[in-house]
Amino acid sequence: MTKKSSILFNKPATLDSMYALIGDDLKQVNNLILERVKNEIPLINDIVKHIVSSGGKRIRPALTLICSKLCNYGEKRHISLAAAVEFIHTATLLHDDVVDESKLRRGLPTANEVFGNKASVLVGDFLLSQAFQFMVADGSLKVLKILSDASAIIAKGEVMQLISEGEPETSVEDYLSIITSKTAALFAAACELGAVVADKNEHEESLRNFGLNIGIAFQLVDDALDYVAEEETLGKTVGDDFREGKITLPVIIAYAEGNKEEKSFWKRTLGDLEQTHDDLDKAILLLEKHSAISKTLEMAELYCEKARKSLNNFQPSLARTALYDLVDFCVSRAY
Amino acid sequence: MTKKSSILFNKPATLDSMYALIGDDLKQVNNLILERVKNEIPLINDIVKHIVSSGGKRIRPALTLICSKLCNYGEKRHISLAAAVEFIHTATLLHDDVVDESKLRRGLPTANEVFGNKASVLVGDFLLSQAFQFMVADGSLKVLKILSDASAIIAKGEVMQLISEGEPETSVEDYLSIITSKTAALFAAACELGAVVADKNEHEESLRNFGLNIGIAFQLVDDALDYVAEEETLGKTVGDDFREGKITLPVIIAYAEGNKEEKSFWKRTLGDLEQTHDDLDKAILLLEKHSAISKTLEMAELYCEKARKSLNNFQPSLARTALYDLVDFCVSRAY
Repeated sequence: MTKKSSILFNKPATLDSMYALIGDDLKQVNNLILERVKNEIPLINDIVKHIVSSGGKRIRPALTLICSKLCNYGEKRHISLAAAVEFIHTATLLHDDVVDESKLRRGLPTANEVFGNKASVLVGDFLLSQAFQFMVADGSLKVLKILSDASAIIAKGEVMQLISEGEPETSVEDYLSIITSKTAALFAAACELGAVVADKNEHEESLRNFGLNIGIAFQLVDDALDYVAEEETLGKTVGDDFREGKITLPVIIAYAEGNKEEKSFWKRTLGDLEQTHDDLDKAILLLEKHSAISKTLEMAELYCEKARKSLNNFQPSLARTALYDLVDFCVSRAY
Repeated sequence: MTKKSSILFNKPATLDSMYALIGDDLKQVNNLILERVKNEIPLINDIVKHIVSSGGKRIRPALTLICSKLCNYGEKRHISLAAAVEFIHTATLLHDDVVDESKLRRGLPTANEVFGNKASVLVGDFLLSQAFQFMVADGSLKVLKILSDASAIIAKGEVMQLISEGEPETSVEDYLSIITSKTAALFAAACELGAVVADKNEHEESLRNFGLNIGIAFQLVDDALDYVAEEETLGKTVGDDFREGKITLPVIIAYAEGNKEEKSFWKRTLGDLEQTHDDLDKAILLLEKHSAISKTLEMAELYCEKARKSLNNFQPSLARTALYDLVDFCVSRAY
């Protein structure tokens, strides 16, 4: 297994500055989520607890919280809206894992592995409906529009990704469109909500763009990590994307630059899903040969730079610093 | 295969009076649905066309349309809200068929059979998000609350049903709670919307109750038909519920009244899903022995009567007659 130890940041970025600012809020979000399902049927409660306690970074709800803070918001609406964002994300995860037949997520067995596919599909639906109930209770049509649009875009992105499965000739443009839809749209919405609750119309677009770009960068790094991370760092099985025939940027690059024999390797392994024991290692060697991982991370860095620029309109503050740190973390976690 | 030919209505009820009144509106709903997905990715478009052209009765959106008419509504909001109702229903169907591993619906292969489980899960999510986009475009928080609540209740009902699978000791109370959630809640919401768009607050509760009761009756009849209908009438595979270990009222009755040997038959076939070729026929004989189908239909008739009573507050009109006919149709389709 290859490790990306060739490039090392001097000081690995962390999310500490962000969690220091929003730690209490994030606890309230977690409590609200657990409270909301406490009296539900045990199966729903169990699945939600399984996911909430799995130690995810809660990046999406955290974005809503930190962006609210950036906009000097001092009320409480951001808590339930961050919970709505997390419910939408969790519902997507549950359905994703069913679709991908994944066995591990964040180092723990996936919900479908523990509770079965049926439960994952139905509890995913339940969580999505809870998200909408939180939004309706919040009472803002603007919020409802932002999150229902995001929800529609995510679903469309998931379908697009399904269609691209096994097609290594997928264009970079189509790939970017897929990850923008399936991942970045919710990041964008989560950030925009910070400006909306604070009633800072003038910041909506900047925060939306910040979220969109950090979301794209985040997914690019994820797609790189899927081939090169240590399993315990990644928190999911290395090579999942490969085994599922998922077409990500590293593969698109290696395929495009590959010779005839390499192209037929990718077609056999990803297109026909005919894989032997050594194929993942061979795939990783081919990615190295064409510097596909570095190129993917370079592209992530470009989107990080766009994200940083979106913060130019804001005055210096602890919240802004935390967002810069988040951008640094996004790429540095790959090293 | 047993047919319920023992009791025959003189004149089988039809939905003609309803479709005569709302036929044009229903066409607009169908067109809106097809129009909405026309420019989507082909897979989404194909699945929606597959479902829309499958010849379903469109009872749920029809309820929104006819109840709007009953309340003398003369504008256009009911069209997109009926489409939202149908999208919620269709999303549920898609996920249901994945969960149930169904192969036939309305006499045609299910979407998961044609397009695969993954596509059904993801396109279901897409349709649910479309439903919310229609509601947000409509712009009424009241509508959003009614349908997001319904959506949450449906999802919960589906999970409850999943838990009850294979448990013939499920109580009648729990069974009624499941079908009220998974089926009647959307009927109730669909009807209530008719009063809401017409701004007739005084009729909301009556229409909600009408929908709730007709919805329960509708599901009771469906659950009876699953054992006794001709396949071409039912439009899905007879014995599906049996093969899936789904616990419905006919089984609950036959189990509760069965002797020790019968109880162990139900436990083996539905609890352990150990079924031999003859077991469905044996199950049907046991249902006959305990008059479980007639008793189920009698209970449906009780709910039909409640539904009729909810219409007492309305002046006679063609729309009211159509709703009475719908109630008659609901049970008579079983004979």
